[in-house]
Amino acid sequence: MKKIEHIGIAVKDIKASNLLFEKLFNTPAYKQETVESEGVTTSFFQTGPNKIELLEATNPDSPIAKFIEKKGEGIHHIAFEVDNIKEEILRLKAEGFSVINETPKKGADNKLVAFLHPKTTNGVLIELCQEIR
Amino acid sequence: MKKIEHIGIAVKDIKASNLLFEKLFNTPAYKQETVESEGVTTSFFQTGPNKIELLEATNPDSPIAKFIEKKGEGIHHIAFEVDNIKEEILRLKAEGFSVINETPKKGADNKLVAFLHPKTTNGVLIELCQEIR
Repeated sequence: MKKIEHIGIAVKDIKASNLLFEKLFNTPAYKQETVESEGVTTSFFQTGPNKIELLEATNPDSPIAKFIEKKGEGIHHIAFEVDNIKEEILRLKAEGFSVINETPKKGADNKLVAFLHPKTTNGVLIELCQEIR
Repeated sequence: MKKIEHIGIAVKDIKASNLLFEKLFNTPAYKQETVESEGVTTSFFQTGPNKIELLEATNPDSPIAKFIEKKGEGIHHIAFEVDNIKEEILRLKAEGFSVINETPKKGADNKLVAFLHPKTTNGVLIELCQEIR
């Protein structure tokens, strides 16, 4: 894993949260993107080599809506950048981690992504991501 | 804020979690440190320009013990590196954020640290940290 690519934060109202995080980082979001297949609207803030991704649900069945219902607003996942997501999935499966997406899927921000189940990672939802070249 | 300095993860058993995260990152923790004043034993993993800090409570009154009791193991806080923590505290207070430590305190890993209350940051416990030079 090369670095923290981004941290995903579940929010109820992305417009209000964009203003809040703009104050926090002293710089505005540089991109907003809706990923209908995932049921999320996202916005991205740059902080040095890392990004913060805000996530708002686009419908009540979105994983983000369910997360907020259960746990409230807050950190949803950590995404780590990898060079070769398919190899990393195989390595982590062999190490005993539970991989939710054995075949990587298209995520936000031009990435192939796969998630590890929090049950095998101390309650942390971990995303692997690889830039689509 | 210059970058994500580290992400803090609350764990029940740091020895078991050290092995787990060693498998995840394919590299062992490079440091372990107990901060008695904070009631925590910590270990650190390097992932590119960022760190992951595991936190185990040293006593039942530790904030980490209370966090795990309430929410279970998982992501506890995000720490951002800043150049001047005192100036950043003043800037964020003026922006309306609730700063828990108006005077920065000594944290793990040779840092001055201050926390923002999650009630003003979408449920995210945010730490500011500045290297002690």
